[in-house]
Amino acid sequence: MKYASFTAANGSPTWGVVVGGTAFDLGPSGADLAPTMRAAVEEGIFGSVTEEQYIAAPAAPEADIEFLPAVTNPGKIICIGVNYKTHQEESGKTGQTAPTVFTRFADTQMGHLAPAIMPRSTTKFDYEGEMALVIGKEAWHVAEEDAWDHIAGYGAYNDFSVRDWQKAASQWIPGKNFPSTGAFGPYLVPAADLGSTDALTLETRVNGETRQKASVADLYFPIPELISYVTGFTRLSPGDVIVTGTPGGVGLFWGEGGLLSEGDVVEVEITGLGTLRNTVELEN
Amino acid sequence: MKYASFTAANGSPTWGVVVGGTAFDLGPSGADLAPTMRAAVEEGIFGSVTEEQYIAAPAAPEADIEFLPAVTNPGKIICIGVNYKTHQEESGKTGQTAPTVFTRFADTQMGHLAPAIMPRSTTKFDYEGEMALVIGKEAWHVAEEDAWDHIAGYGAYNDFSVRDWQKAASQWIPGKNFPSTGAFGPYLVPAADLGSTDALTLETRVNGETRQKASVADLYFPIPELISYVTGFTRLSPGDVIVTGTPGGVGLFWGEGGLLSEGDVVEVEITGLGTLRNTVELEN
Repeated sequence: MKYASFTAANGSPTWGVVVGGTAFDLGPSGADLAPTMRAAVEEGIFGSVTEEQYIAAPAAPEADIEFLPAVTNPGKIICIGVNYKTHQEESGKTGQTAPTVFTRFADTQMGHLAPAIMPRSTTKFDYEGEMALVIGKEAWHVAEEDAWDHIAGYGAYNDFSVRDWQKAASQWIPGKNFPSTGAFGPYLVPAADLGSTDALTLETRVNGETRQKASVADLYFPIPELISYVTGFTRLSPGDVIVTGTPGGVGLFWGEGGLLSEGDVVEVEITGLGTLRNTVELEN
Repeated sequence: MKYASFTAANGSPTWGVVVGGTAFDLGPSGADLAPTMRAAVEEGIFGSVTEEQYIAAPAAPEADIEFLPAVTNPGKIICIGVNYKTHQEESGKTGQTAPTVFTRFADTQMGHLAPAIMPRSTTKFDYEGEMALVIGKEAWHVAEEDAWDHIAGYGAYNDFSVRDWQKAASQWIPGKNFPSTGAFGPYLVPAADLGSTDALTLETRVNGETRQKASVADLYFPIPELISYVTGFTRLSPGDVIVTGTPGGVGLFWGEGGLLSEGDVVEVEITGLGTLRNTVELEN
């Protein structure tokens, strides 16, 4: 089943499920199973919603809802850099011996179909299609063999990057933390519904042109290793997000016209997770 | 006046003022002027507390209170790297053209006298004495000339660093985000009470030996430039923290015995901001 965060008919943020083109409101404005997606994950409601629970909830055509980031208020957003061999090679960053970890603030996120805001202070705005996972239970010093048990679900992510700010100094935080640059969605899909992540293909398109295409099985540091490494230094909680890395084909190394301009439509499609679409708008 | 966050007599977290060796509880367990230090900053109460307001509040000898991080729950903790020439030189990172920015999660913080927890997974635990500032009002695209108006106050910070995890990959986040490694306090002192930060001296001592000593006037990117740069990519709110950087003399470059061991006592003293003291304990 597909879960999503979105704006309710009354204008307040909510969450629910999307079934057969219809979005059912399971938040406070609807069936009120939990206040937010994060709370639904914390309370074990995410992944266990039944038809009986959603069928009577306030519903709207999926085409009419305004998507929010799949988790609107994660406590921690952990991003993994240079985690596909193809991206390591194009960026000249081969020989990684440990995961590269940086962070996003939650206020950088936006949902499916929301604009990706290109700051006026950049000439190098870029996309990075990625698969994100959401933590389902408290995680601290997790062994690799226990890692899968700590995942609630998965969604598509576009880690839009402001390259000049990212590379102005050694640490990338500025280029990864502008508002409306962390696209997350459309859906969050329970791990149990998705099956093996190794079977998933990630594809990023700009105005319909394929720029990135990879199997999630090609992650350089696989998911269990990421969870074990990250929980080796910080405690993760339900609703926290790990964005697992982007494959080769980012705009910066694409050559002429690779970077983004106003009006460009960027899509990240992942098997079973849907297509995340955002259009680039220039900052007001 | 000195403000502090601490544990109330009833065991709950609170905040208040410390005057003449006495801590007055101004939180919900006391005079209830605001629930937390962050709220006191948001509501403009921080910096304006009068003797009339605190004198009747529940009080305890300062020596008896358990200090908490000066702001326990900042929305954002922005840390600035290699921001003194002496530290740039010892680390070989000269020629900086933009501030180096990384982040801490709020759950890495602890207060004055709380242990600094050395992880079992490191052999390179280090100190970094720094001055921190706390944002007093919403800040986005702030011009340098307006920067000072956005500061509520200042405190001492020890950005304890796990060097092997910091340098395992290009991004430093893991080495800067272990629990109980961001010491903040003892006090938060209103900007108006402190006067010019250029007059302040920062000194870090390990077991009484001076390791770092610098004038805050020697910040490579000065405070207005930091606030302008950071608010060029992320919106800051009241209670957010900027940790401004550490001078030369960190343990990593001190030579034999420079790094920290169990039982070491580390002090960061800044003119007018008090002495922040933490003892290194090995992770349980």
